[in-house]
Amino acid sequence: MGVVVAIDDGNNSRASVKPLVELTREDMALVNQLILSKTGSEVAMIPEVAQHLIDSGGKRLRPMLTLAAARMCGYQGDRHITLAASVEFMHTATLLHDDVVDESDMRRGKQSARIVWGNQASVLVGDFLLGQAFRMMVDAGSMEALDVLSTASTVIAEGEVMQLAAAQSMETTEDDYLAVIRGKTAALFSAACEVGPILAATDKPVRDAFRSYGMNLGLAFQLVDDALDYGGSKADLGKNVGDDFHEGKITLPVLLAFRRGNGEEQQFWREAMESDSADSQSLQHAMGLLRKHGAIPDTVARARHYGEIARDALAPLPASSHKDALLEVVEFCVSRVS
Amino acid sequence: MGVVVAIDDGNNSRASVKPLVELTREDMALVNQLILSKTGSEVAMIPEVAQHLIDSGGKRLRPMLTLAAARMCGYQGDRHITLAASVEFMHTATLLHDDVVDESDMRRGKQSARIVWGNQASVLVGDFLLGQAFRMMVDAGSMEALDVLSTASTVIAEGEVMQLAAAQSMETTEDDYLAVIRGKTAALFSAACEVGPILAATDKPVRDAFRSYGMNLGLAFQLVDDALDYGGSKADLGKNVGDDFHEGKITLPVLLAFRRGNGEEQQFWREAMESDSADSQSLQHAMGLLRKHGAIPDTVARARHYGEIARDALAPLPASSHKDALLEVVEFCVSRVS
Repeated sequence: MGVVVAIDDGNNSRASVKPLVELTREDMALVNQLILSKTGSEVAMIPEVAQHLIDSGGKRLRPMLTLAAARMCGYQGDRHITLAASVEFMHTATLLHDDVVDESDMRRGKQSARIVWGNQASVLVGDFLLGQAFRMMVDAGSMEALDVLSTASTVIAEGEVMQLAAAQSMETTEDDYLAVIRGKTAALFSAACEVGPILAATDKPVRDAFRSYGMNLGLAFQLVDDALDYGGSKADLGKNVGDDFHEGKITLPVLLAFRRGNGEEQQFWREAMESDSADSQSLQHAMGLLRKHGAIPDTVARARHYGEIARDALAPLPASSHKDALLEVVEFCVSRVS
Repeated sequence: MGVVVAIDDGNNSRASVKPLVELTREDMALVNQLILSKTGSEVAMIPEVAQHLIDSGGKRLRPMLTLAAARMCGYQGDRHITLAASVEFMHTATLLHDDVVDESDMRRGKQSARIVWGNQASVLVGDFLLGQAFRMMVDAGSMEALDVLSTASTVIAEGEVMQLAAAQSMETTEDDYLAVIRGKTAALFSAACEVGPILAATDKPVRDAFRSYGMNLGLAFQLVDDALDYGGSKADLGKNVGDDFHEGKITLPVLLAFRRGNGEEQQFWREAMESDSADSQSLQHAMGLLRKHGAIPDTVARARHYGEIARDALAPLPASSHKDALLEVVEFCVSRVS
């Protein structure tokens, strides 16, 4: 733990998303145009809320994955643009609903939409964006892609409900927690990658490779995110340090520290996470316990494990600039925290 | 205003949904089975919340419309079962999110899901059901049906956002209000009807007829619902009388009374609807003003107008028992309040 690399630092000598950004630059310009046009509505509040989130500088990693996967599989058409935009809308809809569910005040360094426009607008504009995502899938015209993405949308919701049910119980196991993030985060990464080979009509093993790459990249990404929640600075993260802690959201660092802790420490975690009473003094104590038990570096080690699976999933596929870029994304994700 | 016919009173000598229920009985048994199987999830909270709503005795009018429309167009397959279940899931998802947005405590005479399981679960289980709805549409395999239903899902959300924006302003015009209910209610009625002829691969004029029938039936249905909110008894409605009033939800009866009222009355409506201070004494006063200006019977008269358009939309189609049943549904909807 220590130095945190800023998320979009493409000039760093270490692994970066820059090659992926470069390779998808032209396509992403079209995706961004499409995203803009599909947030349009005569109902003024819809573009306002949607733009608030869309302008707030997300990395748009998921649509880039769709674009790169399609091109790497030799796809020559333009329907990957539509599916990439659709993937980003699914993600944005999820963020809007998540902020309501988590009662989050901040998102990507700005006030969350629910603070500016209220919970009601966040729920409804999320529904609108999800509807638009499905309309775009219909435009793309692939029933297989629709199958993969609609399934992802149910799995995401299942993951979120699972988290809700497990959220404030220290009885959550590491396996339970993996099931949660497999749903809430990794399912969309996986679907975003799988629709690329679907458009290119590749053989099943190629589709399977991309699905596995996306799933494991998503797990690695989320675990690093969980580690960063306790290890970054406010400016780097675009959210408050300790947000998960204050929300009583149990993540892997906490689960590791809890399981390795003595009775007194376990009592502290129970009180802090199972009640809503966590204050900044408790956060300092929690950070101390995380350090004592090496919970942050070990969470990152777990992330690295899934990152390796993601890399190996792509191993059978022929070398290409797209493949190199996708492999570097894995390294970038796990090296965001060091 | 006066006597309220219980909603599912099929033995009444007046217009009834009974013929529609009879004609779709076998198909509906399959729809109900499918609905049950698609609420299944390893995440226990999902079937619990979904069943709470599904068991609470909604009429399932929308899926019956899909079934009848498909059969009336001569459709012989079984994909109308899947689409009917999908339509009901879209509706159920909307109800879950609506209760959160409206902060409703009751739904169909029971505590609303958000009261029992919280807003968070209602948002997420709604998302799950919406995802399942799209998966079922994919199962049904009709890209045209997917187009119609996904478009409806965005229009519904737009209608709801519009209502949110307009909800507490007495400047809302009757046209504004119609745009709201066209989205939030009529769009799904319309789509539910249109996917029938789509499955049967009819000519465009038949599709157009069913779309128009559904849209205008939906408008009539919602306007009568708005009238019932001020005219029924708690037992008949399954919700509290004056719910709309207490939530500051401006509906046509209020708009009519406001526009017809004197300065003092308009001031009363502004204070009651634009603040959150409406109490039961205000409700009594409001009911008096609605009576004074004939706002309830005139809302029903407006509903009857849309009902007539719905009837005439089906006029060019050949006579059949299904057609008779669909026409009787229109009469049933507008005669629920008299």
